[in-house]
Amino acid sequence: MKKKGSLLVVLAFLLGYTASAQTWIWYPGDYEIWLSNQMQNRRTDRGVFFPVFWKVDSHYNLMDFHKVYTLSAPETIHIYVEGQYNVKLDGKPIDGTPKTLLVPAGKHKINIKVFNQASVPTVFVKGKTIVSDASWLTTFEDKEWIDETGKTSDVSATKWLSAGSWNFNSPTALPSAFKLPTKPLEATQVTTNSGSRLYDFGKETFGFIKLHGLQGKGRVTIYYGESKEEALDKNEAVTIDVLDISNTTKKDSTMVLSKAFRYVQIVTEGNVSYSKASALYEYADIEDKGSFTCNDAAINKIYDVAKYTLHLSTREFFIDGIKRDRWVWSGDAYQSYLMNYYLMNDNATVTRTMYALRGKDPVTGHINTIMDYTFYWFLSIYDYYLFTGDKKFIEQNYDKMKSLMDYVMARRNKNGLLEWMPGDWIFIDWAAGLSKKGEVSFEQLLFARSLETMALCADIVKDETHVGSYKKLAVEMRTKLFELYWNKDKQALVHSRIDGVQTQNVTRYANMFSIFFNYFSEAQKQAVKKSVLLNDSIQKITTPYMRFYELESLCAMGEQNYVLDQMKAYWGGMLDLGATSFWEEYNPEKKGEEHYSMYGRKFGKSLCHAWGASPIYLLGKYYLGVQPTAPGFAKYTVTPALGGLQWMEGKVPTPNGVIALKVSTTSIQIQSPTGEGVLRIRSKTVPTGALATPKENNYYEIVIEKNKSYSIGYAAL
Amino acid sequence: MKKKGSLLVVLAFLLGYTASAQTWIWYPGDYEIWLSNQMQNRRTDRGVFFPVFWKVDSHYNLMDFHKVYTLSAPETIHIYVEGQYNVKLDGKPIDGTPKTLLVPAGKHKINIKVFNQASVPTVFVKGKTIVSDASWLTTFEDKEWIDETGKTSDVSATKWLSAGSWNFNSPTALPSAFKLPTKPLEATQVTTNSGSRLYDFGKETFGFIKLHGLQGKGRVTIYYGESKEEALDKNEAVTIDVLDISNTTKKDSTMVLSKAFRYVQIVTEGNVSYSKASALYEYADIEDKGSFTCNDAAINKIYDVAKYTLHLSTREFFIDGIKRDRWVWSGDAYQSYLMNYYLMNDNATVTRTMYALRGKDPVTGHINTIMDYTFYWFLSIYDYYLFTGDKKFIEQNYDKMKSLMDYVMARRNKNGLLEWMPGDWIFIDWAAGLSKKGEVSFEQLLFARSLETMALCADIVKDETHVGSYKKLAVEMRTKLFELYWNKDKQALVHSRIDGVQTQNVTRYANMFSIFFNYFSEAQKQAVKKSVLLNDSIQKITTPYMRFYELESLCAMGEQNYVLDQMKAYWGGMLDLGATSFWEEYNPEKKGEEHYSMYGRKFGKSLCHAWGASPIYLLGKYYLGVQPTAPGFAKYTVTPALGGLQWMEGKVPTPNGVIALKVSTTSIQIQSPTGEGVLRIRSKTVPTGALATPKENNYYEIVIEKNKSYSIGYAAL
Repeated sequence: MKKKGSLLVVLAFLLGYTASAQTWIWYPGDYEIWLSNQMQNRRTDRGVFFPVFWKVDSHYNLMDFHKVYTLSAPETIHIYVEGQYNVKLDGKPIDGTPKTLLVPAGKHKINIKVFNQASVPTVFVKGKTIVSDASWLTTFEDKEWIDETGKTSDVSATKWLSAGSWNFNSPTALPSAFKLPTKPLEATQVTTNSGSRLYDFGKETFGFIKLHGLQGKGRVTIYYGESKEEALDKNEAVTIDVLDISNTTKKDSTMVLSKAFRYVQIVTEGNVSYSKASALYEYADIEDKGSFTCNDAAINKIYDVAKYTLHLSTREFFIDGIKRDRWVWSGDAYQSYLMNYYLMNDNATVTRTMYALRGKDPVTGHINTIMDYTFYWFLSIYDYYLFTGDKKFIEQNYDKMKSLMDYVMARRNKNGLLEWMPGDWIFIDWAAGLSKKGEVSFEQLLFARSLETMALCADIVKDETHVGSYKKLAVEMRTKLFELYWNKDKQALVHSRIDGVQTQNVTRYANMFSIFFNYFSEAQKQAVKKSVLLNDSIQKITTPYMRFYELESLCAMGEQNYVLDQMKAYWGGMLDLGATSFWEEYNPEKKGEEHYSMYGRKFGKSLCHAWGASPIYLLGKYYLGVQPTAPGFAKYTVTPALGGLQWMEGKVPTPNGVIALKVSTTSIQIQSPTGEGVLRIRSKTVPTGALATPKENNYYEIVIEKNKSYSIGYAAL
Repeated sequence: MKKKGSLLVVLAFLLGYTASAQTWIWYPGDYEIWLSNQMQNRRTDRGVFFPVFWKVDSHYNLMDFHKVYTLSAPETIHIYVEGQYNVKLDGKPIDGTPKTLLVPAGKHKINIKVFNQASVPTVFVKGKTIVSDASWLTTFEDKEWIDETGKTSDVSATKWLSAGSWNFNSPTALPSAFKLPTKPLEATQVTTNSGSRLYDFGKETFGFIKLHGLQGKGRVTIYYGESKEEALDKNEAVTIDVLDISNTTKKDSTMVLSKAFRYVQIVTEGNVSYSKASALYEYADIEDKGSFTCNDAAINKIYDVAKYTLHLSTREFFIDGIKRDRWVWSGDAYQSYLMNYYLMNDNATVTRTMYALRGKDPVTGHINTIMDYTFYWFLSIYDYYLFTGDKKFIEQNYDKMKSLMDYVMARRNKNGLLEWMPGDWIFIDWAAGLSKKGEVSFEQLLFARSLETMALCADIVKDETHVGSYKKLAVEMRTKLFELYWNKDKQALVHSRIDGVQTQNVTRYANMFSIFFNYFSEAQKQAVKKSVLLNDSIQKITTPYMRFYELESLCAMGEQNYVLDQMKAYWGGMLDLGATSFWEEYNPEKKGEEHYSMYGRKFGKSLCHAWGASPIYLLGKYYLGVQPTAPGFAKYTVTPALGGLQWMEGKVPTPNGVIALKVSTTSIQIQSPTGEGVLRIRSKTVPTGALATPKENNYYEIVIEKNKSYSIGYAAL
């Protein structure tokens, strides 16, 4: 008997019937969409509800979940459901709304059908071997009907997707009740004035303000400030709370909404008193897996503040900034994903954000209404696959990729190019006077790259008919990009065409992306470096958002020394101004309070913006130099570049653990838990400590096997 | 000043700024979809939740409402909202969540933006002249953003629809809290057995059972029965309620869900007692506008029971039956609409049902999963326009008509015909052994008719590009129908083609529809009457559903005498068996309890099914003979046909009141409040009392002007 038992276990394992941990499950993407609705509707401006301006979708409210089990012994399962539901065993409904069910031995199908309008239909099942997990299948239309003779319809065509889940692993951890954790936070300094107090929490933070021992009758107004100036400006502070108090006894009062602040000014009117104010720091509890340290304290500080900036902006989703917009923006999130791969590697937050951004069909506008943001969504999917190897996500989302691409393709003009149409927003970057007229080169470039992504994904899901068509379209778009926008005299891609004629305007955007997309020939790259990237007469970039790509393009061309100086000047410049997190925009030419203004408002700028955190990405990808070259780090390269540093050490996360390395001008220690790596080093001498294959240009390649420690001697060039 | 005031009133009137009654408003269709989700999820079977099996949609959860007003004097408005919201005046947000707002004199724009996930975002505004009504505009994506300089985006392209509303005309009449009214109902007879009582409510009814003075510890089970047999059959009664009671004092207990029943058996176990059971009759409070009486008591009884059947099945929506499915089915509703036009003329229930059925894009299946039911939806829209003249509904729904038609067209096979595809249900009718294989003629016929409807509607909304293409397709389909299915030997359309070859099977469906669609030539009609309609060797119809069309086709050919006999035999046959409402199916050949079974279940059949009520329609349209011939009864014909009756009188509703007529073999009294009518009578003598124009075949035509009473003398032929 024992032997038979073991055999069954082995069989079960082979068939994928492994007893994994039970978790709450739902239709993939639905919880993510629902949660993003909750989150994005928490934005306020001067106390006024400030929701998004694009179409917001809902979860499917009627869902069927099922799984077929083969049991060696009967077992009782416990069923927990968010919503109104029924349970069927082998197609037969069970009386009432059962909380337990005895499933007999043998092969049996369990169906749970759930309706929930207010929150997402979710299911949690726990038995000895039967547990709800991603192996359950789910659909929003089972099309199962019964004819007049009692026969059930043929439902073989019903499309079932693997259930979605996160980490709600106990029956009481209801997905609809999810909240980010908090912990108490005290101010570092309090300044009392007549009728008001100013609390300084020491650095940019996020949470709920709590008033202790609040008593009396009157009004309390809280002015939040990312800067002291903002908190002290009653008319211009972007976020406020107004409380009308009538407490006969002392009560503690915590604000309903969490907000971004370093400072809060609390003003009382009437006969109101409170003993003190503190905060509940609200955060996503995500640990860092990646790291970076080096001999340069300024760079270390930049890396730390970048980390803090990214953590503050990583909440239920990757959001843009914590003061505003507190929304999920595709272009912003795209950078957070990339930074995340080098820091937290929390990929649930990546997929959650991608699901939230895509929403549902029909597509009635670009993602966030922005043409470029639609394209970043496509790009992010392939990146995600490369960094994680998670093919299933692509399979589950391929139909949505296609329908979004259909939307884009239907908007091409008579030249097959994309230009502004009513309802579109062409963003590119915040840059004074940037033209969005006509056919902008940058949009065509992202379109080409998105088509390449579609071709790659069509191949992954084996959509044979479309692999070819997407490839063909991608090649056409790339060809057009160079035919129509490359200007030989300027040795650059021009910014746009208007009425079929090239404009004289050269901007950095399409040029820098063409470098790291490898769209340029080597000669073009070198030309563009001079004619655009290092050319001060080309309009400067003043957002960390586009500096991300500008510096990436320079790194991709081996300009790590130059970029290190740029980092120190630009991000260091913000630190010199007292920044405790990195900003939405930084223009070194501005002075004093000018730095805080944007959107025509004195304190309109966000002083903690995820896109400010790009040093995390640049240092991981282009200094430590670790990059996956096959999905999920099955293959990867390590091309360390000190960029003028004496030494650096750090970790880069992979799905199977971190690749750790320490690099000086004479030695490299490296260890990897995964895949097959190639260490590429430039050395005056033949590297020691491992077999080094010489390549052109003083480069040597050393194969890094997994779970082996390497200590390489070399002489940095 | 007075004069100026009057001028302004006149101007305001001309501009459409009339002060109409304020009402709760929403995005058109959204409340209807939400409410149908609530209603359809109330079905239970043996106490088990029994939801639908097709995709269920949700309302848009983030909405913007606006209207521009020009005020002669400032006014304060009161604002009520279901959901989280903000208010803007001329684009500027108002502090907090205002409940009142002072709108200055002059031209001003008011925006209200609302988020609500659980129920529909709705708004109610009341001022002196500013009131929320259907003249407000609404969108689910305003695409209004602010650039870095503070400039607002160009939103001229945003698509705004006129707000939807119903009859929620006070701030406290919250749409989300809507419930049908109830009134107490007592049983007519109680039979007490050991441990149980049987309550007879005298006739089929619907409501909440209430147990009075419920006390003790134990279980109460309520078995609902449309028949006594069903209520007494503990194992087979389709609906039940099970209550576990532990009351130390006497309490009244009303069931949570309303149900259909004539009888209820109440069984107690343990130490439970109650004084009596009664019911709360739940109903849609809709009055009849149409009527029909005649000298034949049997027909009058049939008409009355038909009315009761339709009223029971007219709830929040037109549903199929009250025991089951309690769902909104397109083919069933299509008949309810038509009956409604001749009885209640409650067109809010028509549009509500059409909105609920159509749901939202994307289309992922046929309406109710049934191909024919998709087509009935198209057909119902043009009918609605014809009977009401409500062009706006077509304008608001035209995009959805188009996307549903796109779905259908994409499913044509290589012959341009429709046949079963996975996930489809081809229903046609409940009929033993009815083949759904291959290309079924009935589906092609409905497809052709739907394309004609699209062409008509494209013309109404001035979609010039599609008028032609839909017309062309419609003609092609009609041509194909006759080329491919007309069998000269059989003098009939055959049922289907399989592998490109006509089957030998002739069924009634396509043949009878081709008569009243006027697809047949006069010769074909006469041939088909003999070869199909009156041919007993062609499979008989056993549902009132298809008898509706069968008898309609005979009426359309002047067979009112024959049809009157059929009505008396078929509907009278149900009455003879004790029916107090008309059934889902009636086969005179069955005996005793056999009548109650269906779907392989002893009491599976619904004994109150809307489609059983068709005499309402037949008597109104083909005996009183009133039919609109231009939208909203701008023109209509009256072609009375006594069909063997001595006299009949009745009323037919129009948007402007009822057309009343009384017809005997010698005189006709008629009065109409609307349009231009043509009375068509067949008379041996020249009619008297009005100018009668003689036509072929002893017909005379008399023009009926509105608001004039006519008393015509004639001699019925």
